[in-house]
Amino acid sequence: MNEMKLSPIGIVHSNYSRKTKHDYLDRVAIEAKIEIYHEFVDGLFKLEKFNELWILFWFTEIDEQERQTLRVHPRRNPDNPERGVFSTRSPARPNPIGLTKVKLLKIEKNILTVKGLDAFDNTLILDIKEV
Amino acid sequence: MNEMKLSPIGIVHSNYSRKTKHDYLDRVAIEAKIEIYHEFVDGLFKLEKFNELWILFWFTEIDEQERQTLRVHPRRNPDNPERGVFSTRSPARPNPIGLTKVKLLKIEKNILTVKGLDAFDNTLILDIKEV
Repeated sequence: MNEMKLSPIGIVHSNYSRKTKHDYLDRVAIEAKIEIYHEFVDGLFKLEKFNELWILFWFTEIDEQERQTLRVHPRRNPDNPERGVFSTRSPARPNPIGLTKVKLLKIEKNILTVKGLDAFDNTLILDIKEV
Repeated sequence: MNEMKLSPIGIVHSNYSRKTKHDYLDRVAIEAKIEIYHEFVDGLFKLEKFNELWILFWFTEIDEQERQTLRVHPRRNPDNPERGVFSTRSPARPNPIGLTKVKLLKIEKNILTVKGLDAFDNTLILDIKEV
């Protein structure tokens, strides 16, 4: 079997970061840019026809130890009863892949402008899929 | 940065395979079992309360060369106009991760019975998420 290794196809440019997080509770309102690396630009062919897309990204801030996490209090709120990570969206999980549906506002060359991407600035993008 | 390496959390047991594919055109009808490896079972805590889940899996059949694919005819049908892979669900893509919403029918110990999983028998599971 091939090793399961990922390569980023692009990177997020956003005002949304660990620091500004609390200003963006309405994550649907977040606008961000996704820069697609030049070698993957051909994969954007005809993408402008789509209004909504799935974005898969890597939770860059999760380290090896946090990948051992199997139970969490959802939204890091101790009042929320503990659950296994597989019934949550917690970033701390064995394979720290994030999944968000975004609205595509614009494509200019290799830059996508999207709405609703709750990934921090500098997050690495793994994939974009048809909804 | 940490290397972006994945570890499977489980494996699919299904009658759906490359061979039987054409018998299963109604993929919503497919029933399959997901075996979660023992070291990850604690991540299933309280999962039985959920009816629908996202399943992320690795397209095991895609080799290094197919990961170079950036344009496809959707559903491998030459009559479908070519598109960039990022506006499709094609398995041949730079990071060959599959994404499917399933109905959770049953959990017994480390075995989930699900409906609608269009992943072949023996597919490696990467993640399960709240819908």
